[in-house]
Amino acid sequence: MLETASEVREAVRSGRFRQPTAGVAGGYVQTNVVILPKDLAFEFLLFCQRNPKPCPVIEVLEPGQTEARLTAPGSDIRTDAPRYRVYESGQMSAEHDNLAELWRDDLVTFLLGCSFSFEQALIDAGIALPYIQCAPELRRNVPMFNTNIETVSAGPFAGPLVVSQRWIPSAQVVRAVQVTSRFPGVHGAPIHIGDGSVIGIPDPLQPDYGDPWPPSSGDLVPLYWACGVTPQAVALASGTPFMITHAPGYMFLTDLRDQDLSVF
Amino acid sequence: MLETASEVREAVRSGRFRQPTAGVAGGYVQTNVVILPKDLAFEFLLFCQRNPKPCPVIEVLEPGQTEARLTAPGSDIRTDAPRYRVYESGQMSAEHDNLAELWRDDLVTFLLGCSFSFEQALIDAGIALPYIQCAPELRRNVPMFNTNIETVSAGPFAGPLVVSQRWIPSAQVVRAVQVTSRFPGVHGAPIHIGDGSVIGIPDPLQPDYGDPWPPSSGDLVPLYWACGVTPQAVALASGTPFMITHAPGYMFLTDLRDQDLSVF
Repeated sequence: MLETASEVREAVRSGRFRQPTAGVAGGYVQTNVVILPKDLAFEFLLFCQRNPKPCPVIEVLEPGQTEARLTAPGSDIRTDAPRYRVYESGQMSAEHDNLAELWRDDLVTFLLGCSFSFEQALIDAGIALPYIQCAPELRRNVPMFNTNIETVSAGPFAGPLVVSQRWIPSAQVVRAVQVTSRFPGVHGAPIHIGDGSVIGIPDPLQPDYGDPWPPSSGDLVPLYWACGVTPQAVALASGTPFMITHAPGYMFLTDLRDQDLSVF
Repeated sequence: MLETASEVREAVRSGRFRQPTAGVAGGYVQTNVVILPKDLAFEFLLFCQRNPKPCPVIEVLEPGQTEARLTAPGSDIRTDAPRYRVYESGQMSAEHDNLAELWRDDLVTFLLGCSFSFEQALIDAGIALPYIQCAPELRRNVPMFNTNIETVSAGPFAGPLVVSQRWIPSAQVVRAVQVTSRFPGVHGAPIHIGDGSVIGIPDPLQPDYGDPWPPSSGDLVPLYWACGVTPQAVALASGTPFMITHAPGYMFLTDLRDQDLSVF
């Protein structure tokens, strides 16, 4: 029923689907959504260009454009994510089911890559991710941490890099680096392996966002990847006057397949 | 004497060096330069994002900024390329040694990757490039062709993809694909192997730009890579009101090393 990205978008648009999108229409590229007024669009695109690991750009819609023509023909960005958030002056001010009453002709939409794509590649490579590979009711969100690594600023956008954490068996660490290196469009290779204190993480079991993932054996090593929460955290830290995003976990689905984002 | 990028930039700035930069300060990343008014900058950056193979962005300077702070600290984009071209309304109107009298505070500078970086990687992998590996007086420019492949347009920017051509021994074609795949920041993997008529090239020995490179044996296969001439060709085809570029072959040198651009 909801096997393809366009079927999911149609179900969301008609109000039949309002849940988180993890595991939905497997194999299709899901994206983070950031919508900004045109007068901030150049600086934000520049921020993404300078920080491609946390902010891998999948598509940018031109001002006022509502259809993601390149990666999701027939879509409507005002209706096709299951939940949206509105931020004003660096504070979340509201959540909405659609953007019908908020849309303006000067708004520019950015679709940014999401770790769902490389997580599937890790699983395909035989690397266990227990927070995903379990009964749906036991699924947890990946742990995410603020770091002491500053992003490269652009115009008003500046702030710390956020990373996601995954515990990998030591014998599979090299393979995990190789597999995710093939996907620079969805955060790419990890930015750190091992001791989190080196990048400003005091306790690897107390994440700033998401759920803790205590390692089940002493053989597991924590790997840290640049995270798609970074642009939201940066926009908040920067006091961005007006921004719309998807609600975390309620992603926009494109017609791209995960493998389309592999560089080799 | 001119062993590092900063030494070359200093020699250019002082007027001591006004030659093409091929082979100069080997191992440093050289870039194409495109300078546009701020009101075209978002659409051009969008064009680059949509066409990363011909337009790989190395750095974008903020409006009015003259120093490439991230990739060439201490540089001055107004003086540090050996020759510049000015285009007005889609026509070349002048060449200049520097931009002292042309600079404006609304100008945005784009530095785009150049094939010099991946050519060195090919040579390091044992793949012969006779138009480079010869006495300096015999060196030729790489052959370049217009294709029937349209770039993905953005705002006013639209036009055909330009490709460069290199003849590779058939036994080394796979290796050439592998080696250049590691460098998506400087055009990456080829876009076509073999019969050029498939991409709108009627005669592989009659290039639209650069010099012909007749194959020296029947064992050589033509490979085609997306080319940094594309953004200039597109800007010209689009009748861009005002644009400054480097003169072809007279590149801007960054402090990055070629290997910094390898994704793995």
